[in-house]
This record gives sequence, structure tokens and C-alpha cells, in this order.
Amino acid sequence: MSVLLFNYLGRVYQTGACSNVVKNYIHNISRISDVLTSKPIDCSVTVQGWVKGLRKMKDLTFVDINDGSCVKRLQILIPTRDKPNQLAFGASVRASGLLKTNSKGDLELSASHIQVIGPCVFTDGYPFAARKSYPPDYVRQFLHLRSRTTTFGALLRMRGAVSHTVHKYFNKLGFLYIHTPILTANDCEGAGEVFLVMPESKKLREEMSKSGCSEEEAYFDSKVFLTVSGQLHLEAVLRGIGNVYCFGPTFRAENSRSGRHLSEFYMIEAELAFSDNLDDVSAVAEGIVRASAECLLAEHPDDVELLAGKERCRVLEVESLELLAPVVGELVGGSIREDNPDVLQEKLLNLGLQESLAWYLDIRRFGSIPSGGFGLGFERLLQTLLDVHNIRDTVPFPRWPHNCKA
Amino acid sequence: MSVLLFNYLGRVYQTGACSNVVKNYIHNISRISDVLTSKPIDCSVTVQGWVKGLRKMKDLTFVDINDGSCVKRLQILIPTRDKPNQLAFGASVRASGLLKTNSKGDLELSASHIQVIGPCVFTDGYPFAARKSYPPDYVRQFLHLRSRTTTFGALLRMRGAVSHTVHKYFNKLGFLYIHTPILTANDCEGAGEVFLVMPESKKLREEMSKSGCSEEEAYFDSKVFLTVSGQLHLEAVLRGIGNVYCFGPTFRAENSRSGRHLSEFYMIEAELAFSDNLDDVSAVAEGIVRASAECLLAEHPDDVELLAGKERCRVLEVESLELLAPVVGELVGGSIREDNPDVLQEKLLNLGLQESLAWYLDIRRFGSIPSGGFGLGFERLLQTLLDVHNIRDTVPFPRWPHNCKA
Repeated sequence: MSVLLFNYLGRVYQTGACSNVVKNYIHNISRISDVLTSKPIDCSVTVQGWVKGLRKMKDLTFVDINDGSCVKRLQILIPTRDKPNQLAFGASVRASGLLKTNSKGDLELSASHIQVIGPCVFTDGYPFAARKSYPPDYVRQFLHLRSRTTTFGALLRMRGAVSHTVHKYFNKLGFLYIHTPILTANDCEGAGEVFLVMPESKKLREEMSKSGCSEEEAYFDSKVFLTVSGQLHLEAVLRGIGNVYCFGPTFRAENSRSGRHLSEFYMIEAELAFSDNLDDVSAVAEGIVRASAECLLAEHPDDVELLAGKERCRVLEVESLELLAPVVGELVGGSIREDNPDVLQEKLLNLGLQESLAWYLDIRRFGSIPSGGFGLGFERLLQTLLDVHNIRDTVPFPRWPHNCKA
Repeated sequence: MSVLLFNYLGRVYQTGACSNVVKNYIHNISRISDVLTSKPIDCSVTVQGWVKGLRKMKDLTFVDINDGSCVKRLQILIPTRDKPNQLAFGASVRASGLLKTNSKGDLELSASHIQVIGPCVFTDGYPFAARKSYPPDYVRQFLHLRSRTTTFGALLRMRGAVSHTVHKYFNKLGFLYIHTPILTANDCEGAGEVFLVMPESKKLREEMSKSGCSEEEAYFDSKVFLTVSGQLHLEAVLRGIGNVYCFGPTFRAENSRSGRHLSEFYMIEAELAFSDNLDDVSAVAEGIVRASAECLLAEHPDDVELLAGKERCRVLEVESLELLAPVVGELVGGSIREDNPDVLQEKLLNLGLQESLAWYLDIRRFGSIPSGGFGLGFERLLQTLLDVHNIRDTVPFPRWPHNCKA
């Protein structure tokens, strides 16, 4: 809330200190995933996180904490007499001590100091309790607290990792990342299922309205919608720059409340320059699915196991991924694009789009090239790979009819 | 247009062929950047691209082509008697032949075959001519053809590269990439300058309207706006998962037609968990500027030179980047966030936001942690680094008042 605009220029352009400061910030407190990987036994370690479990014995209290860096928890031992009063499930804590291996061979932190940073009082209305798991429909009522659950934390880490993988994949293939516009005057593909956009301020709409314009058209001189696809814009950029892709939000104003539709969702779309071969298009799309499965197995096996079960890792490993197909119907749609301006003009005329899409015809008239492309629903990809039944559980803040909470 | 939805599942989940097909698609035609780097002298090479220059001599015709993979052109030699009629500035071509070094030491392709793929007839209305350069205001009238110009091609490559760099930077620092929502019921920070969103179909709005709801509220049961910042949502996710960032479109319904404002623009926003130190926040933001400058110098020196002049590379190299500051005023805004629920509640009450932002208060009530963060305007970063005077020339399809073309 308190957005203080500090004078940043004084710092940004100062020399030297930067990388060290970043390094210090990141490294003077250890992430639990790093501690569990590098295992600095008998070394002094400070960790921070949220209490996931607590067992108080006569002499010792065992505290399991997680900091979101991985699905695993680090067990912290403190003398029961030193246990802070506010140490409870859900509280945030900072703990320092020596890292040890216990009799079972597990790592644990023998804490010389533990501090509650933010208490969590269950009776104040915290919706999650210790040692309980909740159905997704219940957790989804608390979108703003959902990252506190072990399961959704795992989903968020994997969504982030697969997103990175998509970018790395295209970068390696030499496809240029294009930010296609969210706002567009083209409603051609939405077939009436588009969202309309206008300034919320009626005063501004009235001020900006030119004669003959409705208030809806006032700001941009035409009705403007939320994009349903970046395809047309990719096709334009491609005819000068070569292979391109986009990966961003798209929108549908459908009144569908199935577990397979969202009003706001992410699409990976790519266009192949100088291509008239659907096999090429399929192969590039297919590569995304494979690269994503590989990333999950290599970087997030614990998260996959937690979210989708131990078996899932084996499914992602097997040579044929076809076992995954049943979860989602249509994962990818693609085609070779119509490149003949005469044929395209005829189609646009029939659809009454000859004026609004004159520019789309134009890109075929000057040094055009054959091209093909596809769109792949990112949430459906996650559903397929991770066996998530409701698409709303693949997005941090899902939006669907009658629901735009948090 | 002709979006044929092919049955992809049959292919996606077939084994084996994938990586080879991708490889073949990418490699049987060489990209000009690869040819100029790997220099396969006396080897047979096929390239594709657009004609950027043409000199017809008695025996030989020299054709300069560019394929968007880099700023450089490859010179192609063909016997003038074999020159296709339609070979002209702006046409797309495919050429095969042997790669040679000419007497000046430059690479050139001695073509055995050249084919015009898409002709370009200047008198049909192509807005660019050979050997002419155009002011940005002129080129901006043809957004759908802008990638055909050498300068904007360079900008697009650098925008894509810096975008990748941003993701790599945060990934390396262990910040999780979060897709914060575009649609939100929170208009708190927009101060009246937000875009309102509703289904375009009046029929749908009427159907979905519950009693007591206006048509504007029908679809989501409340007014819904385009996001002005992902900060609040990042703060929620952070309190369970740790350091997070987002990098996506944000919107302002201002009536500003200066060269420094867009209606749709990209923001890089990050939140630092367990942080109450503004120096940390600044340092992480500062790192983005440095990583971006390094990326441009290392990967795109030719593009930088073309767009901003030879001197610019030296500016990006010098130890202090402060020379760049004057171009943009406020590049970054950040703060330590208010973490005291009582103080925050008071503020929300004063702003009349206690109901709509109840969730934002809630995330402070259960195991909260101190956090700080910043927002960095991506287009202004590009302006700063590349000395681009009008922000509209940093975006593929810019949107500003009275302008939502293509």
C-alpha cells in the first residue's frame, strides 16, 4: 500500500556495491533447499520460514519449518524451556544454530536461537490447521493464503519452473520472444466471447469522446477488447524477423463454469517462418511438452510426487507420454496459415472483417512468406503433466464467471 | 485466420521423431546470423530472407538479404541473366549456393539458385523504399510492417533478449516467477485511472446479471479492472513461498499523449521476503539494469550500434551507468511494505478499502513477515539503455489514447 517512490537513480547508477549487496541479501540467510542440498554439517546456519509442525516434549521441542524454497521441511530442535510463547503452527520464525545429522540420518538444526517474526493465532480465523489436509475446493476459497499450503506451494514452484523452461526452449531454437498486445481492436476470433475494455472514469470517457463516437469507443477511437490470441500479431512480426513466439495472458468471456475453463489463462503461441509443413509445427509444439516433463523430473521430483503421487514421476519418464493425453482434450491447436492474399481477402469479405483486418491482409501483400503456428494452453499443459483435475488449481489467482476474488 | 484445430494428441505423444524433426526444421535452412558466425566457406548453404538491397550489373547482380536473425545482411551473387523478374526490394527469397570470401574479405553467397517466395511491388503501396531511412513517426504509422525495418528489427531482438535476461536473473537469485492476474477487482492504486472490463456481449451480461448487480458487475459479481500493478498479489504469494517476481503487462487509462506514457506497458516487479532493508530492494533492482546492459553488450553489440550509435556501446561499458539517467525520470519505485496489521487497517479504513482489500490485510494476520519490493518499467529501462526517445518505439504494438491500431 504505502508505495514510497524513492529516488532510485542515485543508487542504480552507483558503481561496485551492487553485486555484493545482492549476494549478501541472498546469502546471509540460507534457503532450506540449499541447506538440504549442500549439507553444511556442524556449521552455523540461519534459516527463516513458517512452522509446519510442532512437537513439545519435556526437554526438547521439535519444530518443522518450510520456507517455500522446496517441498521439504527442516527440523529444528530447541530446549523446551526456550520455546517462545507464540511459537505455533503457521507462525513465521527465524532460527540459528548448528546443523547436525540425527540418529535416523536426517538433517536437523540444533537451534541456539529461535524468534517468532509473525504469530499465527488459529482462533483468529486462520483457515488451515496442523496435520490436516483439505480438498482443493476448500483451499480455493482462500486464494490469498493458498501459497501457505504445501500442495499449492509445490504447484507454484512447478508453474514457475515450467514457465522458465518454455522461454529457454524457444531461446535455444532461435525463436524471438514477442510481447503481443493485450488490448486489441480485433474481435474476429472471439466470436462474441470477448471482454470489452474502456476507462472506468465516465468523466474521462466523456472528455475524450470525439463526435460520432460512443463512450465505449472514446478512449481508443474504437471498441477495444482483451486479446483472445497473439497469433495475428505474431504473423505480422514474423514477416520481417523470422520465427517468433509469445507466452502471456489471453481472455474468454464465456459463461462456462467447468473445471476446464478460465476467463483469464496463459497461452504459448509460436509462428514458424518459411514453413508450410504441419509436421514442423507439431514438432515444435511437441518439444515443449517434452522439455516441460524433463524439467519437472530433473528439478522438481519431490514437488511432482507430492502433488501427483510417486507414480507420476514414472509416467513422465516413460518413453511414450500418451498416458497423459486423457486428462485434457484439446491441448494444442495449429495450422498452416493462409498466405494467398486473394483467398484471404475473400474470407475477410465473407466475415465482414475487410476493414478491421485490412492490416492482416496487408502483411501478405509485400514480400510475404508461408508460415504455420500453434497455440498451446499453458494451464492445460500443467493439468496434463501433473494430473490436476480443476484448471483453477493451476493458476495463482484464477478468474472464472462470478469469481474475481483477491 | 483459418485456425484448423488438428488432432494433435496423436503426434504429441508419439515417441522418437520429435527432436529430430525440430532439428531438421531448424537446421536444413541456415540462419544468416549462424552463417556469418560459423563461416562455412566453400560449403553449400541455403538461406531465406528479405531483399534489403539490389545492384544489377551487366553480368552479375548483387542481392543483400536479411532474415531478422541479426542486423547484418548476406550478399548474394547471381548471374544477371538468372535474375527473377520479381526480385526487388522487400521481396522474400530463398537462395542456395556456395559460401565464399570476396576480395574485401567479406562473406558472400555465390548462388546457384534463387527463388522469389513473395513479391513486393512498391507501387502497390509498400511504405518503405530502398536506401531510404524514415523518421520513427512515419514508421509508426505502419505497425504491422514495422518489423521489416532494420531499426525496429534491432529493437525487437533486443527487447526479446533483455526479457530473457530478466527471467534468467531472477531465476539465478532464486526468485519464483508468478503470473499475477490481469483482471482484478482492486482499483485501489489506479486512483481513477483504471480500465473497466466487461463482456462485450450485452446478451451475456443480461443473462449473468444477478439481482442488484449492474451490467458492469454481471460477469464477475463486481466491477473488474485491468491491473495497475502485481504488487499486492506478489505480497500474498510471498507469505508462503518466499521471494517472488512478475513481469507482465499493466495498464493505465490516462489521457497522456507524451512520449513517456503508454496505456499498456510492461512492469518488472519483485518482492523480497523477510526484508526490511531498502538497500536490499535497491540492489536487486539495480542488478536488473546491470544484467540488461551486459546482455546487450555481449549478445547484441551490432543492434545497439545500429539503434543508438557506436558511442552507446561505450556508455553501456563504462563503470558508472549514471550517464543514462537523464532519459527517464522515475525508472524504479519501491518501498518496505507496511507489515503492521493495525497500521494497515487504519490506512485501509481511511481510504474506504477495508472491504475490498480485506484479503490484503488478512495476509498480515497469520504468520506475516517483513517484505519490500519494487516496480521497474520495462519500456523505460529499454529507453534508458538504448536512448529511445519515444516509448512507443520500444513496444511491438503500442497503445495510447486514440490509438489501438493493428
